[in-house]
Amino acid sequence: MPSSSYAEQSAVTGPLAVTVLGLGPMGRALAAAFLAAGVRTTVWNRTPGRDTELVERGAIGARTAEEAVAASPLTVVCVVNYDASDAVLRRDAVAAALKGHALVNLSADTPDRARDTGRWAAEHGIAYLDGAIMTPTPTIGTAAGVFLHSGPADLYERHRPVLDALGGTHTHLGEDIGRAAAYDIALLDIFWTAMTGYMHAVAVAKAEGISARELTPFARGIGEILPPVFDGLGGDIDDGTFSGEGNPITSAASTMAHVIHTSEAHGIEAGVMRAAEGLARRVIGAGHGADGATRMVELLGRR
Amino acid sequence: MPSSSYAEQSAVTGPLAVTVLGLGPMGRALAAAFLAAGVRTTVWNRTPGRDTELVERGAIGARTAEEAVAASPLTVVCVVNYDASDAVLRRDAVAAALKGHALVNLSADTPDRARDTGRWAAEHGIAYLDGAIMTPTPTIGTAAGVFLHSGPADLYERHRPVLDALGGTHTHLGEDIGRAAAYDIALLDIFWTAMTGYMHAVAVAKAEGISARELTPFARGIGEILPPVFDGLGGDIDDGTFSGEGNPITSAASTMAHVIHTSEAHGIEAGVMRAAEGLARRVIGAGHGADGATRMVELLGRR
Ligand SMILES: NC(=O)c1ccc[n+]([C@@H]2O[C@H](COP(=O)([O-])OP(=O)(O)OC[C@H]3O[C@@H](n4cnc5c(N)ncnc54)[C@H](OP(=O)(O)O)[C@@H]3O)[C@@H](O)[C@H]2O)c1
Ligand SMILES: NC(=O)c1ccc[n+]([C@@H]2O[C@H](COP(=O)([O-])OP(=O)(O)OC[C@H]3O[C@@H](n4cnc5c(N)ncnc54)[C@H](OP(=O)(O)O)[C@@H]3O)[C@@H](O)[C@H]2O)c1
Repeated sequence: MPSSSYAEQSAVTGPLAVTVLGLGPMGRALAAAFLAAGVRTTVWNRTPGRDTELVERGAIGARTAEEAVAASPLTVVCVVNYDASDAVLRRDAVAAALKGHALVNLSADTPDRARDTGRWAAEHGIAYLDGAIMTPTPTIGTAAGVFLHSGPADLYERHRPVLDALGGTHTHLGEDIGRAAAYDIALLDIFWTAMTGYMHAVAVAKAEGISARELTPFARGIGEILPPVFDGLGGDIDDGTFSGEGNPITSAASTMAHVIHTSEAHGIEAGVMRAAEGLARRVIGAGHGADGATRMVELLGRR
Repeated sequence: MPSSSYAEQSAVTGPLAVTVLGLGPMGRALAAAFLAAGVRTTVWNRTPGRDTELVERGAIGARTAEEAVAASPLTVVCVVNYDASDAVLRRDAVAAALKGHALVNLSADTPDRARDTGRWAAEHGIAYLDGAIMTPTPTIGTAAGVFLHSGPADLYERHRPVLDALGGTHTHLGEDIGRAAAYDIALLDIFWTAMTGYMHAVAVAKAEGISARELTPFARGIGEILPPVFDGLGGDIDDGTFSGEGNPITSAASTMAHVIHTSEAHGIEAGVMRAAEGLARRVIGAGHGADGATRMVELLGRR
């Protein structure tokens, strides 16, 4: 993208304005998407110098976080986690500058941290939305981006025009400020567990003389099975049928044991699969061996 | 499918013939697909009475395993595991009847068990192929079936016409008799780890007041991200670049910690994610925190 002077850029910006706090890979992607959509964009990052390219493209580089948040009716904060967003936001000067403004926190953390930040914002007269970004930086500004939001519905509707400038799909999940983070946690649980399974599978395959590239088309095939499987299981779990659709958890446990055995025979630890097999064995031990692996949800949810 | 008498059925069968040992859900699906393709199909199962429907459709029900294997040049065995296939095959009468015939073992187990069965078959003059079925019973006889095979290439080519009667995609992975099982193990490692991650995610979501059905469209979205991610990682691992594509393992470890924290705050054990996080922390501890999660493969493979 060619750089342009601020004067050139400001000539094409509309009345929308936003501040982005945090210029890591994701914060920079957000700011770049806002700029590309013609939104007047003010940026700030703890460590200076991260805004150079954005300023060349027309962003306004603020010297302090308080100066940055004062410049726009809506601030988007996107830093590593809520310890970091607290370090940025929970200072008197910043809280004062945010008073009467709106804040969307797109940093990832737990639902509890989102709810705690919601309480802090309410105490300081800041209109607060929480959110989560489900897709990587290259998707930002494209149709492939997926954004989750939670908090007051009217606040969300008011700031949708700015958020929509990021492209992609935005879903408002409800008024509970922790709800976007709760979805985020559940989805990242699936993603990182599956990713770790993939890494382990490649390690075992390599020990068997199969390269990661050789495994790839088949790994892709397994990956493609998962979305329709997930589609089918939701109702089975909510309705408490745990049918397993002809695939009893005893069969899954037997498969898991084969994986553990093959892995450990190669000196490759199988801690993740051992933990998974432990869950399956506990379901079987509880008398549900003929049911589907979905019984694990019930076992896990029992305190 | 309407039942037909043996006379009617045999009138439409071609010269191809096969024996199926094991009539669990998968063995029955295999036998039904052979019959539907006009292959002369002899069937046997340890527990009698499982062949009724197949015999109605034209299968020949054998009284013993030795009688069954004597009836066809090729026998397909598909039982729960290799303890079971040993119990069926490793009897003098069966070995004698199989001598000079071909055997394909489509039961799931470890590569070591497949190699051991290969040695036993060689000692008894039995032409042996090993295989694995990667898709569920409803795919058998359709284009969606995925079958992996390993063992002597000429033997595989000779029996392809019968195997092709099962429909789907058949891949010969190499002459090492354990290779199909090795792929199977790696792919089931991915599948069951991901499935366990899904079950855990649903348990955490439910504790946060999100139903499995509400999570489903987003879980599907995460599932859809996996195939292209797997596609991109194979080369990164084989080439030892471990780039992480802008997603350092420190970030993954931080996410995993959020999942563990949220889970355990609800009294839901997080043993699988704790094991995964342990791997990530060990990669970071080894000085590779800026690299991608693919470094886990290297860590796991190191004895
Ligand atoms: N990258 C992705 O593909 C992706 C995808 C979905 C969601 N996310 C989420 O987006 C958020 C940002 O991710 P990222 O990719 O930009 O990289 P990141 O490494 O997670 O975050 C880097 C940012 O956090 C700031 N930061 C860290 N500690 C701080 C502190 N104590 N005080 C103030 N600022 C602090 C950094 O400032 P300094 O420059 O001063 O260190 C930098 O701006 C994370 O929550 C991540 O989970 C990222
Ligand atoms: N079902 C699927 O969707 C699927 C998908 C891919 C791969 N597979 C694989 O296909 C194989 C067969 O699976 P399945 O679905 O048919 O059900 P299964 O429960 O895995 O196997 C049942 C079969 O094993 C036999 N068996 C068990 N122990 C035996 C023993 N000691 N001696 C002789 N026979 C014994 C049973 O005979 P009895 O009737 O006498 O008990 C029955 O024929 C398994 O290895 C499975 O992993 C299945």
